[in-house]
Amino acid sequence: MKVISKIADIKREIKELKRAGKTVGLVPTMGYLHEGHVSLVDKSVSENDITVVSIFVNPTQFGPTEDLAAYPRDFDRDKEMVEAAGADVIFFPTPEEMYPEGACTKVSLSGITEVLCGITRPVHFAGVATVVTKLFNIVSPDRAYFGEKDYQQLQVIKRMVKDLNMDVDVIGMPIIRETDGLAKSSRNIYLKGEERTSALALSKSFNIISDMVKAGEKDVKKIKQAVTDFIHSYPHTKVDYVELVDPSDLRYLTQIEGDFVTALAVYVGKARLIDNKYFSGVIK
Amino acid sequence: MKVISKIADIKREIKELKRAGKTVGLVPTMGYLHEGHVSLVDKSVSENDITVVSIFVNPTQFGPTEDLAAYPRDFDRDKEMVEAAGADVIFFPTPEEMYPEGACTKVSLSGITEVLCGITRPVHFAGVATVVTKLFNIVSPDRAYFGEKDYQQLQVIKRMVKDLNMDVDVIGMPIIRETDGLAKSSRNIYLKGEERTSALALSKSFNIISDMVKAGEKDVKKIKQAVTDFIHSYPHTKVDYVELVDPSDLRYLTQIEGDFVTALAVYVGKARLIDNKYFSGVIK
Repeated sequence: MKVISKIADIKREIKELKRAGKTVGLVPTMGYLHEGHVSLVDKSVSENDITVVSIFVNPTQFGPTEDLAAYPRDFDRDKEMVEAAGADVIFFPTPEEMYPEGACTKVSLSGITEVLCGITRPVHFAGVATVVTKLFNIVSPDRAYFGEKDYQQLQVIKRMVKDLNMDVDVIGMPIIRETDGLAKSSRNIYLKGEERTSALALSKSFNIISDMVKAGEKDVKKIKQAVTDFIHSYPHTKVDYVELVDPSDLRYLTQIEGDFVTALAVYVGKARLIDNKYFSGVIK
Repeated sequence: MKVISKIADIKREIKELKRAGKTVGLVPTMGYLHEGHVSLVDKSVSENDITVVSIFVNPTQFGPTEDLAAYPRDFDRDKEMVEAAGADVIFFPTPEEMYPEGACTKVSLSGITEVLCGITRPVHFAGVATVVTKLFNIVSPDRAYFGEKDYQQLQVIKRMVKDLNMDVDVIGMPIIRETDGLAKSSRNIYLKGEERTSALALSKSFNIISDMVKAGEKDVKKIKQAVTDFIHSYPHTKVDYVELVDPSDLRYLTQIEGDFVTALAVYVGKARLIDNKYFSGVIK
């Protein structure tokens, strides 16, 4: 496995591989990998000749008050995990390599980025869209793999690829959870003491929704209130949002009419955790 | 020569050509072609196996009060000119094909797009950057050709390609002028009666700058005033801007220190005309 940090070097490498007819899969990450990331690498290895994992804590997707400096990093551990999973290349650029002085171009989306996490993180998705566009242009992947935990991010990237006519197949992979239900996340490392138990409030709240919907409840306001109250019954929690949305355009629902996604963002201590669940076929 | 209007069709076509090892040149245009465009097609034909000319009056680069509906169109004439110049494909999509319902992704640049034409045309360059990104992703050109008449546009596209790590060589080609000096433009058709003579004020004003600079004038304010007064001495003219800028980042100069570009935008009757000239080596 190669570790490449320069854009020109990986472009040259990829060009040779493409000329030899190889297919390329890309797994973009911010490092500090967990089993969720590994499931993406596994899938890419199974579907492509070459798998590139990018590890880059992208500064432009963090707001000024967010956890950029504190974001956990452990390159040596990441490298071992990626190599064990069978990836071929790690792309590991510096911020200066990705954003040299004078860089001023941004890719942004309206609508879909102005709901859910876009409300408290107004610069986040433009940062994501821009860095993913750059990574796609640098690595020229046939397929790119993203976790469904970041459900809004996945929809944003799918929309961007469609809108800008990019030639890459965007593949979403299921959330990987701890045995007790907590969605795996690099930010779980922030959870201290009883916060770890409180973090279960997110995944457990989906049961409440299932039960209410099965009982015939269609009023989203009532469901949101019940979920919020449930989460706040755990110590150290503060709901950022609880929303039931249209699965593709993330439009907020007020009434349940068919399939929907429940998306949550909750502060547990200092950690801002997200989770989501697709509800299908629960409505008669 | 083929005329293709569907994105999926031209993508398929290009993929086959690329697989066969062909190089592709792209000349993006809004149609109503003149000798300036033809010089781009000629250059592309000489440097690439395949030349694609796109003809698309891009609605997103026109402001709400601008001349989108009035913009001149003549596809049959364009087709003849492009075929005579030796191009292989015309890409001629509809607005609905380029911007289907729900499209919400934008490519934008800060700084370089907020000066010169960016002041009176605040949405223009995001429209240009977005459509050019789409065209690059659709046509996958090795080289793309733009006229230097739209000097700011050329710098914006070069910057975007660099910032987003796009794999395309952006080539600027010199302004083509009428024998009396008027820069060729599709919008010259708007000039009525004596406006055609007044339109010469733009190119003639460059002589004033040469003379002043040769005489040792370094104060940009004085030069701008002299140029503005000169242009306004012609009937039906109204200066939008006269600026002397750094050739690469378009920073406004207040003092002449080396090479510079003079960029002009002037309303002549209803037509908004632009012109520019690179001044090099005039300063000791």
